[in-house]
Amino acid sequence: MATHKLLLLPGDGIGPEVMAEVRRVLAVIERKGLIAFEIDEDLVGGSAYDVHGKAISDEAVAKAHAADAVLLGAVGGPKWDGVAYEHRPEAGLLRLRKDLELFANLRPAICYPALADASALKRELVDGLDLMIVRELTGGVYFGEPKEITDLPNGQKRAVDTQVYETYEIERIAEVAFELARVRGNRVTSAEKRNVMKSGLLWNQVVTATHAQGYEDVKLDHMLADALGMQLVRAPKQFDVIVTDNLFGDILSDVASMLTGSLGMLPSASLGAEDPVTGKRKALYEPVHGSAPDIAGKGVANPLAMIASLAMALKYSLGKPDLADTLDRAIAAVLANGYRTGDIYVEGAKRVGTAEMGEAVAAAF
Amino acid sequence: MATHKLLLLPGDGIGPEVMAEVRRVLAVIERKGLIAFEIDEDLVGGSAYDVHGKAISDEAVAKAHAADAVLLGAVGGPKWDGVAYEHRPEAGLLRLRKDLELFANLRPAICYPALADASALKRELVDGLDLMIVRELTGGVYFGEPKEITDLPNGQKRAVDTQVYETYEIERIAEVAFELARVRGNRVTSAEKRNVMKSGLLWNQVVTATHAQGYEDVKLDHMLADALGMQLVRAPKQFDVIVTDNLFGDILSDVASMLTGSLGMLPSASLGAEDPVTGKRKALYEPVHGSAPDIAGKGVANPLAMIASLAMALKYSLGKPDLADTLDRAIAAVLANGYRTGDIYVEGAKRVGTAEMGEAVAAAF
Ligand SMILES: CC(C)[C@H](C(=O)O)[C@@H](O)C(=O)O
Ligand SMILES: CC(C)[C@H](C(=O)O)[C@@H](O)C(=O)O
Repeated sequence: MATHKLLLLPGDGIGPEVMAEVRRVLAVIERKGLIAFEIDEDLVGGSAYDVHGKAISDEAVAKAHAADAVLLGAVGGPKWDGVAYEHRPEAGLLRLRKDLELFANLRPAICYPALADASALKRELVDGLDLMIVRELTGGVYFGEPKEITDLPNGQKRAVDTQVYETYEIERIAEVAFELARVRGNRVTSAEKRNVMKSGLLWNQVVTATHAQGYEDVKLDHMLADALGMQLVRAPKQFDVIVTDNLFGDILSDVASMLTGSLGMLPSASLGAEDPVTGKRKALYEPVHGSAPDIAGKGVANPLAMIASLAMALKYSLGKPDLADTLDRAIAAVLANGYRTGDIYVEGAKRVGTAEMGEAVAAAF
Repeated sequence: MATHKLLLLPGDGIGPEVMAEVRRVLAVIERKGLIAFEIDEDLVGGSAYDVHGKAISDEAVAKAHAADAVLLGAVGGPKWDGVAYEHRPEAGLLRLRKDLELFANLRPAICYPALADASALKRELVDGLDLMIVRELTGGVYFGEPKEITDLPNGQKRAVDTQVYETYEIERIAEVAFELARVRGNRVTSAEKRNVMKSGLLWNQVVTATHAQGYEDVKLDHMLADALGMQLVRAPKQFDVIVTDNLFGDILSDVASMLTGSLGMLPSASLGAEDPVTGKRKALYEPVHGSAPDIAGKGVANPLAMIASLAMALKYSLGKPDLADTLDRAIAAVLANGYRTGDIYVEGAKRVGTAEMGEAVAAAF
């Protein structure tokens, strides 16, 4: 049995707590002899800064390169608010994305039927919601240069960020979106601000051209990013796959995930290009939710998004879609049995903490 | 009685229809001898392009400079999708904002009690909602240079947009937000992505510094723009005034307005700096909704946002807060009497078209 290399990066805030539940599930999988793991762990974010003086060590990045899949908890927190920009916790995550060229960020927004009432939206608008945001992750304003604050002669400051996209970057993310749509609802909505941004104009043109080169079977629509923000709130079920740039994807996917009422449930995958020889792609899996410093260390965080991220890794990186399904079913079963952490609690449910929730999933596996 | 100069720019799509209802209300106000107007009208957007080959003529811009208030309908539509970037309909609006230095865009998101059930959100989350987004409108990625698409040696293209903010631009918009908060709920939430953008970092620092210089009585919070997008959906009533940059403001204000269920009801004001001598500020008023080309020309568009924009003009630019109140009360009365255009229609209400709605408001005035 081949051994699969996993790198766990628990990170900050509730990261370590939810990652502990992934360890618990991994142990069960191994004990059952279903798959053999070689598990390593390292620091990222503020916890790395506290030890190494930077948000990720070169050694940890090298480990990430060598891993079959990286699982990341969360980064950031007020503790590091004063840290220099270059060393802020997020820099560790951004370096991983860039160094591993994880250009495709897949963020499903699914409304679990058992949780539809937890949504801020009316039940009928979100019940059965299943959309996928495909966010470009290694370009745009996140990485463009110049990115700087300079002093002006008048004593004031001037800050500059640069949004840059080249044709190939848009092409490859559009391809990911079209491929994904084919195994889903066969519809892609591309979002940009072509009425204001040149990068939006190029985005629109390249997505259209890519569509014409072999993806005409997929239905393609274009929507302005602000209008899409509105439509997400008004009628989210109209969407199947949404493809958009790094910054719009950041905001719109957060809005979309919150619609579901299941934020604490949502995993994400960040994927690189397929290696032409091995067919493998570098990948990092993490919950959509953040480090939630306000509840960190209290044992109340919901570990299901982190565990669902492991399921995604089993499916997309470790060649075990059957195990992924089993794990997803275990999560659904636990919910159906009424187990709820505080974030998804409803009257009459069984209120549990992080560890109890993890134990329940492990037992149901 | 002094004469007030109004410039009407109906624009595209439903713009002319809803502006016609403003004319109707203006006629009633004049007939009652309450205020004297000197009303001029001109073209903007696609309709200007069709006549002049550009999205606004220099003459129209000159008229806008000379006006006490500009009222704008909406710009844009698929008809002009093929028009060169420099001449697209939006360029007319953007030129007006920039030339008149209308740096402060006030976008209220109010949930009219009569319309709370039209919201996608659960009634209890939006009933009584009254927040104000203060969006920076003449800086950021909308206007920064370079903004271009270039050809690369490899045959691909490279698109660049530049987000630029200088200290004074952030300072003056923060001041507007703090001043507004003082006559509202006394709380300001500033949104940026300081964890990714240098302009976000400077934004955060300057807002904090401005707060310390005489606005400490106002409660100030900072929130990442993606987290704010989430919180808008989860619990919008937590906010009073939100201050943010041009691009985040574009998206977040659209999300916020859609929450209310009252999109067709929401006006906005774009204000310049106060003239130190006359105390006047240049101003443009427009509905938050767009040109809605799908329903244009059918006489079904909701004119209330456009009429409410006139009310804002009466209050902020024409020194007639009493008339503004009367007009706002007329709108509320018409709603209370069950008048509804299609966008806000509910079972059992009186379904009316654009003109009937305008007539009803004029009659209730
Ligand atoms: C932590 C932060 C740098 C990150 C981002 O902005 O991409 C986060 O918000 C996300 O969406 O993964
Ligand atoms: C029409 C367009 C240029 C404009 C913008 O992006 O600012 C619009 O969306 C708005 O919010 O007023």
